Amino acid sequence: MPQGDVGFVGLGIMGRPMVRNLLKAGYSLTVYDIVGSAVEEMVTEGAAAASSAREVAENAPVVITMVPDSPHSEAAILGEGGVLEGASAGSVVIDMSSIAPGSSQKIAAACEAQGVGFLDAPVSGGEPGAIAGTLAIMVGGKQDVFDAHYELLGHMGTSIVLCGDYGAGNTTKLANQIIVAVNIEAVGEALTLARKAGLDPNVVFDAIKGGLAGSTVLNAKGPMMIAGDFQPGFRINLHQKDLRNALLTGQELGVPLPVTGLVQQMIGSLVNDGKGDLDHSAIANFIEDMANTKISGQ
Amino acid sequence: MPQGDVGFVGLGIMGRPMVRNLLKAGYSLTVYDIVGSAVEEMVTEGAAAASSAREVAENAPVVITMVPDSPHSEAAILGEGGVLEGASAGSVVIDMSSIAPGSSQKIAAACEAQGVGFLDAPVSGGEPGAIAGTLAIMVGGKQDVFDAHYELLGHMGTSIVLCGDYGAGNTTKLANQIIVAVNIEAVGEALTLARKAGLDPNVVFDAIKGGLAGSTVLNAKGPMMIAGDFQPGFRINLHQKDLRNALLTGQELGVPLPVTGLVQQMIGSLVNDGKGDLDHSAIANFIEDMANTKISGQ
Repeated sequence: MPQGDVGFVGLGIMGRPMVRNLLKAGYSLTVYDIVGSAVEEMVTEGAAAASSAREVAENAPVVITMVPDSPHSEAAILGEGGVLEGASAGSVVIDMSSIAPGSSQKIAAACEAQGVGFLDAPVSGGEPGAIAGTLAIMVGGKQDVFDAHYELLGHMGTSIVLCGDYGAGNTTKLANQIIVAVNIEAVGEALTLARKAGLDPNVVFDAIKGGLAGSTVLNAKGPMMIAGDFQPGFRINLHQKDLRNALLTGQELGVPLPVTGLVQQMIGSLVNDGKGDLDHSAIANFIEDMANTKISGQ
Repeated sequence: MPQGDVGFVGLGIMGRPMVRNLLKAGYSLTVYDIVGSAVEEMVTEGAAAASSAREVAENAPVVITMVPDSPHSEAAILGEGGVLEGASAGSVVIDMSSIAPGSSQKIAAACEAQGVGFLDAPVSGGEPGAIAGTLAIMVGGKQDVFDAHYELLGHMGTSIVLCGDYGAGNTTKLANQIIVAVNIEAVGEALTLARKAGLDPNVVFDAIKGGLAGSTVLNAKGPMMIAGDFQPGFRINLHQKDLRNALLTGQELGVPLPVTGLVQQMIGSLVNDGKGDLDHSAIANFIEDMANTKISGQ
């Protein structure tokens, strides 16, 4: 089942399982990461190594990038030794990193100027979704480029939605991350108040989860707060980056985001406390610390 | 199916359908409200009129109160001509109003001093839930009093949970209301950002509703924001009262609630703008107004 050549730049926690799913689906992969050991690991699993993002692009008509934030995407695609130095007209770059929409638009413009197609296609679902190939993929770009790569994306995710033009994938991702972070904080305030009032947070959880307060966040993160178990999951450091990009985007567009701003500042305080690698449900720690109360009772 | 005598004080939007469900279940109702026409309406449907809360209590061993806020509960139960002036030892007061937990505890103490049982039993589900008899009832008080009145409450609600001792019903209700208000605000920030970025909010809604951002609030209130239709539902005025009680309770217990405080202030601004009678999904208006953008695009 040879499926053609795909390049992949960025072999982190997310990139490696995504590469594995593409190998499994029959694609020929050429890969690059600044960390040599990650490249070697993928080579032992069947990928070909490149020594730069440019070399990846020289060897594949479709290049996927999966890096931490806007500066990394811009460096990998627009920078020296980057994808656009090696990409031919008619090739396509799919940036699956979660970055600022404005950065996606800047990269898209540079690609277009060179006759290279572009999609921003950030994901949600985390490492488990990447491993299972069940990511939700939010895409920005042109319909024809989206259609032409729908099958490719389908080997990494199950929900693949074209949300609009360049940057729309990342704008949708930011909308998602705003709601998730703020709802986690709200559950933290509610359960801390209940615990300090002497209630069993499990009883409160059971009493409210079926009503208007019910949410996927409450179901997934409430029990973690109640157990005092903040093993990631999705790390606070990454959510801080997403909210920073949300605030940046709000500023560019003239959309004040007061609660997002407040929660982003709380997260900054938790990062200062060395909690950046905890699961984002630990946003509740900010309220617990202020109230001198643990939802877990520990 | 005669079921015994029940008194009911407070015949507003919630109280009237609750009385109807108790009449339908075969209880004999004695009712009172400061609004005479509400009493007359219930009399035409089979209730007996009383001229004060005290007279209600003189005629029924169980008195339910359903009034707007703490001062009204305290007046109806503890005040001149109130329930406790007419209640005999061994009778029971069930306050189904959504009030401050500290006020419930004050009322409970006064009841106990007179040998009168007490439950705080606020509800969620609004007028539709009251009419259908499908309210969620969050109860605080003693297990034996709860058990003895479980069947009675079951004619008004479908989820009836003892959450803890006196005040625990209202503490749970406040936890619920914090999460609901803050999540509405978060959805407002997210969809305003998406709209001002040029995205179709319906597409964003579809892309995120199945993931970690998914919630009952998103499903119920997102489409109202997208349509620009803020017919209540649950009014902003009432949510303002609930968040005020949450902040009051947080202050009493030493639990800072920074995001609840911020959202409560936003709601105050909307009330000043004459929007207190809109559905609480109109909390999004605060962000829309700041951004000069309507999620609905209108």
